[in-house]
Amino acid sequence: MEWVDLVVQNGMVLTMDDQNTTWKDGYVGIKAGKITHIGAGPAPFRAGRIVDAGEGLILPGLVNAHTHAAMSLFRGLADDLPLMDWLENYIFPVEQQMDADFVFAGTQLACAEMILSGTTTFCDMYLFANEVARSANQAGMRCLVGEVLYDFPSPNYGPVEAGLACTEQLIETWRDNPLVSIAVEPHSLYTCSPDLLVQTQELASRHDVPLIIHLAETAAETEEVLKRSGKRPVAFLSSLGLLTPRLIADHVVHVNPDEIELLAESGVRVVHNPESNQKLASGFAPVSRMIARAIPMGLGTDGCASNNNLDLFGEMDTAAKVEKANTLDPTVMSAETVLRMATIGGARVLGMQDRIGSLEIGKQADIIVIDTYKPHLTPMYHPYSQLVYSATGQDVCHSIINGQIVMADRQLKTLDLGDVLAAAEEKAILVKQWIAR
Amino acid sequence: MEWVDLVVQNGMVLTMDDQNTTWKDGYVGIKAGKITHIGAGPAPFRAGRIVDAGEGLILPGLVNAHTHAAMSLFRGLADDLPLMDWLENYIFPVEQQMDADFVFAGTQLACAEMILSGTTTFCDMYLFANEVARSANQAGMRCLVGEVLYDFPSPNYGPVEAGLACTEQLIETWRDNPLVSIAVEPHSLYTCSPDLLVQTQELASRHDVPLIIHLAETAAETEEVLKRSGKRPVAFLSSLGLLTPRLIADHVVHVNPDEIELLAESGVRVVHNPESNQKLASGFAPVSRMIARAIPMGLGTDGCASNNNLDLFGEMDTAAKVEKANTLDPTVMSAETVLRMATIGGARVLGMQDRIGSLEIGKQADIIVIDTYKPHLTPMYHPYSQLVYSATGQDVCHSIINGQIVMADRQLKTLDLGDVLAAAEEKAILVKQWIAR
Repeated sequence: MEWVDLVVQNGMVLTMDDQNTTWKDGYVGIKAGKITHIGAGPAPFRAGRIVDAGEGLILPGLVNAHTHAAMSLFRGLADDLPLMDWLENYIFPVEQQMDADFVFAGTQLACAEMILSGTTTFCDMYLFANEVARSANQAGMRCLVGEVLYDFPSPNYGPVEAGLACTEQLIETWRDNPLVSIAVEPHSLYTCSPDLLVQTQELASRHDVPLIIHLAETAAETEEVLKRSGKRPVAFLSSLGLLTPRLIADHVVHVNPDEIELLAESGVRVVHNPESNQKLASGFAPVSRMIARAIPMGLGTDGCASNNNLDLFGEMDTAAKVEKANTLDPTVMSAETVLRMATIGGARVLGMQDRIGSLEIGKQADIIVIDTYKPHLTPMYHPYSQLVYSATGQDVCHSIINGQIVMADRQLKTLDLGDVLAAAEEKAILVKQWIAR
Repeated sequence: MEWVDLVVQNGMVLTMDDQNTTWKDGYVGIKAGKITHIGAGPAPFRAGRIVDAGEGLILPGLVNAHTHAAMSLFRGLADDLPLMDWLENYIFPVEQQMDADFVFAGTQLACAEMILSGTTTFCDMYLFANEVARSANQAGMRCLVGEVLYDFPSPNYGPVEAGLACTEQLIETWRDNPLVSIAVEPHSLYTCSPDLLVQTQELASRHDVPLIIHLAETAAETEEVLKRSGKRPVAFLSSLGLLTPRLIADHVVHVNPDEIELLAESGVRVVHNPESNQKLASGFAPVSRMIARAIPMGLGTDGCASNNNLDLFGEMDTAAKVEKANTLDPTVMSAETVLRMATIGGARVLGMQDRIGSLEIGKQADIIVIDTYKPHLTPMYHPYSQLVYSATGQDVCHSIINGQIVMADRQLKTLDLGDVLAAAEEKAILVKQWIAR
């Protein structure tokens, strides 16, 4: 009988494939990091290692399609404040002080949290992106990362011209890495000149990598772009030639029906960040209208300074519920819709749908197991409902990325929890000193 | 040196008293179910038993001020449906079939979930309320419960006249119980005749117990009450003489500024249920405007059929975030405001503010401990922020109610988890049979 490296068995397999195939008492066989078998009943192979799902749920690892991982070090630093007070008196001052080591430690903290809450892939935008990549790679997490680019000097690369070179260097450094991919990441329309935006688009095209930007996040952004250019953000970006299938747009809150149409026709991919949009009082994104226009949609937590966690289970719950109240329609954003956003939808947004996002033979083995032996997950009428409306990240008991077990029985396998927390606490002391100045 | 029965020590004590007093490296001493000592440093007493908080947070147990506990057996049964489809094809048919044993099992499941997520007191409205009370009492949980009263026959007591007698019997049965209190609970304006509503008010006055009702939950309710009475719900209730400090109004979504004023002047207490209001597409309650008018506000999860969990940590997060987006003001519903709603605020709404809701000498010992040795609770800049925006119920490691340890190291002490889950699964089989008919 054939051998595989690893099998996950004794649970209900939710594949999240196009037919939403599920297997009761199912198994997933893994060889050389890829899924080689899926089915139900006795496995037709022998396995070098067994992960027992304990009659729980087996599903694809979640995809956090927009975050700033290292901002986990600012979690709870300054909440419930007016936006400009928060940015000018807390976030900007500390970001001017930070260095590579700070970003590495913050990303380690974030990776620990993400693995412990069922995320296996994340898309990041931050300073010192090479440290983000190093940290994620060390943690065994899959990621798409990029150096944040804007008109003003960066504490990492200095003047903006160096930022483009820095991004190009990242692309070279991480080419062919099985876990880390690189994107070109201009911050936003209100921090990047039209010239810089066009240059980022050219760079992304030349290397055939995604272009990622914050878009139409706040009413203030719309006002400012209107004032500067006479156009609203989506129209302005279109006029620069940046609305293409290469673009991943984060937030997308302040868009009207015409702009949704333009995004859909352009093949732009969108990441929905409902908790951050609420916490910063940005507003409610018209997410079900974007879904109705078949815009590829992923789900993101944004950074911990505006959430304040990286738990995609909580984000799914919020995404599903708030849109019902906002549209006064309880049938929108069903559990299935939202769970697909957080798995195969997110994979599609990141351009990874052929490699991850569903459990299918030939895909990379990014798999999580949910422990359902808990009151809040009982009874089990509908698994999608339980995952979206009842579960939290702490119900994830095992996690596998690229065929590697990164968490077993809620114990991290690629990171030392005590070391990660101690390093984070040291950095938090620095943060308090920087703010006190 | 003096002896106490129990001490909780080695953590930061968040008392939630009027001054928000906190004690670093604090302790709480307990004797005969009551708090006898609070402070910091070496405890000035000896203790028969020690609960070590492991450098975590020590705070009052949370108060779930509105739920239907036994509906945990309908968790995930039918989601994302139009309201009338959900009620008429799922909830009403199964509720017509249920019996005392069903409600007992459902309440046990709910108590297990509530204890495991940091709730120590709940306020319930359901059928077979004596079973709710028995179940909670057996689980060692504090509660305010009542038999739901409406015009149509109840599977418990039959005709409505018997419902009032049933409530009176409950009051007799549970008088002087240290954990269980009874309220009079007419369901709503659209299910109770004016005559019944007046009778419930008389009954509640005669026994000096709270009167609890769903009020202004949906736009459909407003329409129907308008059609029947020519008045909107709050005005109609006022015309019947029911707007008094005795009244606890649940939901309160569809109220205009005049109605908020009327509620405030009447001394009515209100329970906010943001997740249920969103999931059922009822809308967004004007919660910060009610708080601005000093209406006593608590927080509730509502039942699991419309949430789908009983985790007040998730509810706090939702309550804080969504109101910021809805008012476009990031400063409303601060972490402190929301944490107070879920502790002393809820206690005040239930009329228990002299007994629970904060950690103060002389109050009953209802205490929870949060394990903060976790990535998503690191760093710890502001404990209130961490509790509201980052924590989930699964971060609660120990729980004490009325001086009794009901959970230690996440193990239930008053309930057998396996028995509770097995009983729930048996009832779920019945539910599926009832729906299939």
